[in-house]
Amino acid sequence: MKILVINSGSSSLKFQLFDSSDLTVSASGLIEQIGEEQSSARLTYFDGVGTRQMLKQSEPVAEHRQAIKLMAELLRESGAMIDVRELAGIGHRVVHGGEAFHEPILIDDAVISAIEELIPLAPLHNPANLTGIRVAMDHAGDIPQVAVFDTAFHQSIPEYGYLYALPYKLYEKYNVRRYGFHGTSHSFVSKAAARFLDIPYDRFNCIVLHLGNGASACAVENGKSVDTSMGMTPLAGLVMGTRCGDIDPAITFYLERNTGMDVNRIDDMLNHESGLKGLCGSNDMRELLAAKEQGSKEMALAFDIYCYRLKKYIGAYFAALGRIDALIFTGGIGENAAPVREHACQGLAGLGITINSEKNNQRKERIMEIHQDEAAVKVLVIPTDEEREIAIQVMAVIKGER
Amino acid sequence: MKILVINSGSSSLKFQLFDSSDLTVSASGLIEQIGEEQSSARLTYFDGVGTRQMLKQSEPVAEHRQAIKLMAELLRESGAMIDVRELAGIGHRVVHGGEAFHEPILIDDAVISAIEELIPLAPLHNPANLTGIRVAMDHAGDIPQVAVFDTAFHQSIPEYGYLYALPYKLYEKYNVRRYGFHGTSHSFVSKAAARFLDIPYDRFNCIVLHLGNGASACAVENGKSVDTSMGMTPLAGLVMGTRCGDIDPAITFYLERNTGMDVNRIDDMLNHESGLKGLCGSNDMRELLAAKEQGSKEMALAFDIYCYRLKKYIGAYFAALGRIDALIFTGGIGENAAPVREHACQGLAGLGITINSEKNNQRKERIMEIHQDEAAVKVLVIPTDEEREIAIQVMAVIKGER
Repeated sequence: MKILVINSGSSSLKFQLFDSSDLTVSASGLIEQIGEEQSSARLTYFDGVGTRQMLKQSEPVAEHRQAIKLMAELLRESGAMIDVRELAGIGHRVVHGGEAFHEPILIDDAVISAIEELIPLAPLHNPANLTGIRVAMDHAGDIPQVAVFDTAFHQSIPEYGYLYALPYKLYEKYNVRRYGFHGTSHSFVSKAAARFLDIPYDRFNCIVLHLGNGASACAVENGKSVDTSMGMTPLAGLVMGTRCGDIDPAITFYLERNTGMDVNRIDDMLNHESGLKGLCGSNDMRELLAAKEQGSKEMALAFDIYCYRLKKYIGAYFAALGRIDALIFTGGIGENAAPVREHACQGLAGLGITINSEKNNQRKERIMEIHQDEAAVKVLVIPTDEEREIAIQVMAVIKGER
Repeated sequence: MKILVINSGSSSLKFQLFDSSDLTVSASGLIEQIGEEQSSARLTYFDGVGTRQMLKQSEPVAEHRQAIKLMAELLRESGAMIDVRELAGIGHRVVHGGEAFHEPILIDDAVISAIEELIPLAPLHNPANLTGIRVAMDHAGDIPQVAVFDTAFHQSIPEYGYLYALPYKLYEKYNVRRYGFHGTSHSFVSKAAARFLDIPYDRFNCIVLHLGNGASACAVENGKSVDTSMGMTPLAGLVMGTRCGDIDPAITFYLERNTGMDVNRIDDMLNHESGLKGLCGSNDMRELLAAKEQGSKEMALAFDIYCYRLKKYIGAYFAALGRIDALIFTGGIGENAAPVREHACQGLAGLGITINSEKNNQRKERIMEIHQDEAAVKVLVIPTDEEREIAIQVMAVIKGER
């Protein structure tokens, strides 16, 4: 049997097909620019003799219903999945589960309503996720479908960690609190690290730095998230590709009064024109590192700001946890940008964190240890795989393990 | 000769008179509710035989010009200062010095203009400070007057520490950056700590927690501020009496869209109805601690949130500094709330920070060591004295040491 994992964005559909017996990937695809004049679809799969193949198509895809159909066609054409009845289950990534969802859940009408109610908290993401769920339910209502939430792993954060120092009624009445995101990734890599280090997960303390275009830090205590840098929304915390992360909240009031920008414009700017891009014009860490090597001062400054924020979060979460077994880098930047890892950890010997430069500069597709031999804290680079983690959770739900 | 230190707020005038030979306080006073129907003024001083005396008055004081006159009258009546010509200098506390002022400066028209230009950055504070300066200049133009800025000590923060991950043009065009406040206090207590521990200040690393109704943390490296928790404004950072400190910046956008509050209302709420007060109804730490002892769950939660934020800043700044000689508590809460100190430092043995409960529960009017004997990091409680520090700086400017 097979497991299909769907990540439905506002104008895109990402999907991956797993073999349920061993969780190998048999196909993965992406349909982009849905609703635009020109769409693009591609599917990567392995043919009968195990060679990697690709199918491409560039006809317009008007909306998600059509995208799901196209996905089914591509899968059929490739031979990866001929009939929807080959599926043991479908997993849907859902960004915001609020306080309603602490774990993955079998989708029914009540679950759909609950995800709908959370739209004000994630106005960009939850509607797109819901569209994917609805269309998939229409097409394959008999197949068990599971919602896996980016926020669920962080529902273990204690009250003193998730509440802001705001009027308490904002929490009671408007659900204003820290939720955190990237939970699927933080959960996946922290479990992988515990296994790798042969430490029981329920006694494992670590800090995970998930560094992609979005980025977040997570403090894991005894296998549970106890703090994370994103907040009520994904805007808070680390410096990201285009998001500012932590700022003085009064900056919005100041900009509104002194620049002629209104609140919506400022919101847009903090989310899409800030972060690395705002500081130096590029949100591509490879480009930034190359330009820094060439002597670009603004790129070097953006790099320093990025790494300094990481360093402070490492310290803050070390203090929150009291001790850590491991510090984990993951995500596109975390896995590939050795200079980021090195610079963020510089001067942290007092926390037992020291990097071995040579090991740090290796490249592997699997777990890498980059700490110095005698270091108290293991520093690991672990490729994340959110789709695989979703597939694992779908299987657990189907088997009734959840 | 004498030094007069003036702290002019929007509806108050605080002042303190020092003997310039030994910096003993000969009188200190407060005029409150300026411009209201009922004002109150009081002066504490020592009479001829060294007994503490008090003068009080409750006539309406219409504006700051009248307040300065009343101050002069009270000082004359007490005998603390008969004539303005007894003054060697006057020091004015100024909240925001922007990037223009790295140190205290003799006030002239250019300085006044520069402080005026900074009003958009500190719309509540700088105008009130300026009023005090203008009136004092009119009354005693011949006496050297010195502006001492809350921001000046933090001007040593490196670029990667003061820049937000926002479009760089916001810094260039609108001066959006971290400035930090409470600099006079952070400077005073960190110097006092270095002297107390007999460590040369230019090799002294410490973290200062200034915890009053406003509160901020400061990372001091080799005697210089390298980071601080307040930002462009005093709203950011720690949980305060009525200010929220760090939050997800998107919360403002969410509240604006979902609650009917406009930006000004939200600004007001984050500044005046949040922090401890927002969480549990009281911004009085004594009251909070008493209620917590009585079993109040909401007070206990507010306490936990307050201390947890402190703990994370200790960790963050430990990481930023690499090593610290001392952790310093100061300000009303920092000096008096032993449970806050104990709870914030719990579980920080990994950073070399351990508190001796018995020492922590003492009360002294002078520097207290509260760490365990074998601790790597000295933990000190140091009474702050911003007025004295301003007087010291005024004398340095007058003597041309600055």
